[in-house]
Amino acid sequence: MLNHNLLGGKLNRGLSAIDSYSLLKEGKQLTSEEIIQISSLGWCIEWLQGYFLVHDDIMDGSSKRRGQPCWFRLSEVGMIAVNDGILLRNHIAVILKQHFRGKPYYVDLLELFNEVEYQTASGQMIDLITTKGRDLSKYSLPVHRRIVQYKTAYYSFYLPVACALLMAGENLDNHANGKDILIKMGIYFQVQDDYLDCFADPRVLGKNGTDIKDFKCSWLVVKALELCNEEQRKLLDENYGQDDGACVAKIKALYKDLKLEDVYQEYENNTYEELKNSIEDQETKLSKAMQAVLKSFLAKIYKRKK
Amino acid sequence: MLNHNLLGGKLNRGLSAIDSYSLLKEGKQLTSEEIIQISSLGWCIEWLQGYFLVHDDIMDGSSKRRGQPCWFRLSEVGMIAVNDGILLRNHIAVILKQHFRGKPYYVDLLELFNEVEYQTASGQMIDLITTKGRDLSKYSLPVHRRIVQYKTAYYSFYLPVACALLMAGENLDNHANGKDILIKMGIYFQVQDDYLDCFADPRVLGKNGTDIKDFKCSWLVVKALELCNEEQRKLLDENYGQDDGACVAKIKALYKDLKLEDVYQEYENNTYEELKNSIEDQETKLSKAMQAVLKSFLAKIYKRKK
Repeated sequence: MLNHNLLGGKLNRGLSAIDSYSLLKEGKQLTSEEIIQISSLGWCIEWLQGYFLVHDDIMDGSSKRRGQPCWFRLSEVGMIAVNDGILLRNHIAVILKQHFRGKPYYVDLLELFNEVEYQTASGQMIDLITTKGRDLSKYSLPVHRRIVQYKTAYYSFYLPVACALLMAGENLDNHANGKDILIKMGIYFQVQDDYLDCFADPRVLGKNGTDIKDFKCSWLVVKALELCNEEQRKLLDENYGQDDGACVAKIKALYKDLKLEDVYQEYENNTYEELKNSIEDQETKLSKAMQAVLKSFLAKIYKRKK
Repeated sequence: MLNHNLLGGKLNRGLSAIDSYSLLKEGKQLTSEEIIQISSLGWCIEWLQGYFLVHDDIMDGSSKRRGQPCWFRLSEVGMIAVNDGILLRNHIAVILKQHFRGKPYYVDLLELFNEVEYQTASGQMIDLITTKGRDLSKYSLPVHRRIVQYKTAYYSFYLPVACALLMAGENLDNHANGKDILIKMGIYFQVQDDYLDCFADPRVLGKNGTDIKDFKCSWLVVKALELCNEEQRKLLDENYGQDDGACVAKIKALYKDLKLEDVYQEYENNTYEELKNSIEDQETKLSKAMQAVLKSFLAKIYKRKK
């Protein structure tokens, strides 16, 4: 269960915690105890991610993940996967207790993981509720942003840095500006995800996109709704969210007609510039180390293909 | 979602926390702050229970719970129920933070809920794995006891008392004997549950039993395996775990032939006596207040009908 659900991905989130801690230490050699500890925190994030993916795949009715069948699709697993997700989640507390009990920031770590899990589950809730209505008129950029901020940004972008900051002895309340930038980067990351779900090569991505057939509030459909004429809107209403290859193909053709690939390129370029500027802006009052952390995150995701 | 999944039950676990705290305070009038705090802990246990039930019903493929359709069976819910369970669970941390942050035992409460959730999920895992094999020769009293101890006893019996002890300023390490008795009581409680699943009136119980068709490692089938002759064993092998009314009826008739109702009465009487004696035994070294807590638990479950 652990091999299937923790490995095979890019481990970006876990590795980010380690990278961030190194940058916060400004190149000072880490002790072997520090390496073990920050690696443990990185794994906690990966176990959290594994748990989310196991459950999300059940709720989305997905088939593949990281090039393999989803865990609940295995004949010997099925709905036991719900409990396996929970077991992954429970191990976070076990790991934290083993490595951090007695540290002054132990309770902050426990609260951080609890809070971020709650934000993510809330994002998943508004995502599922919004999708369930099957009403395209509910979809807009602010709705998309709200879903994405809660569902993805906190745990994928804020959490690794927050772990590193706590281990470096920092108070998270003093890093609100850095947190804001990380959340914006997380939203950008999810827009990329929405784009890749439709336009990436499934062999590179490791899964087949399901956003169109699942009636997801994807950045692409929000943009299509903004740009379409009356006839195209009718096509959207009739074909979006149908589990039928022909309907999905019509939506993809419409996205091409509306030149959403170009719209996306422009969004990506503008967002990159904005994020870079706000990291470098004196007004943002970031330390040099924190600037380095944020720049390293930005470099990792810019123009990503999977 | 909250109304459906938190109400309609007996609230035994939550109320036990309050009763236990009152008994530990030996009749002293509780302040209004104490009442709010111990009630919050009681509700945390009920939210934990609500979360387990939402997930268990999905995994068991159940239809009804507390006289109502299971949450995931509602057409507007479906698999979103997985996330709703998680949201129930996440609120425990929110409630604990709101009422106990800054208390010297705050971190102990966080660890207690984490540990008990982990034990319960582990119990659910061994239950599901044991069932999945569909091999009656794996079923025995020690296997049954191990499942039940982890899946039910920790969160239903130990957790309410441990919450009350922490709020009373006690160190849980000093109450190992009380914990052992509570776990034994929890196992007795689950044997009752197994018995009622087959023999209780579904209208009183609020659900239809599914243990036989689900091939559960129930106390009844373990006893049947102990007592059956070769021919009856064949009947068990052929009919246990079939989702077919006729097969279920044959198993129930066999339970009657083997007089499992009498075997259960004898088990219940013996277990009651044993528990009563170990509570009163000087060797067990329990305080008067702890004895009162344990006796009150035992009185609540003895000869229960639902």
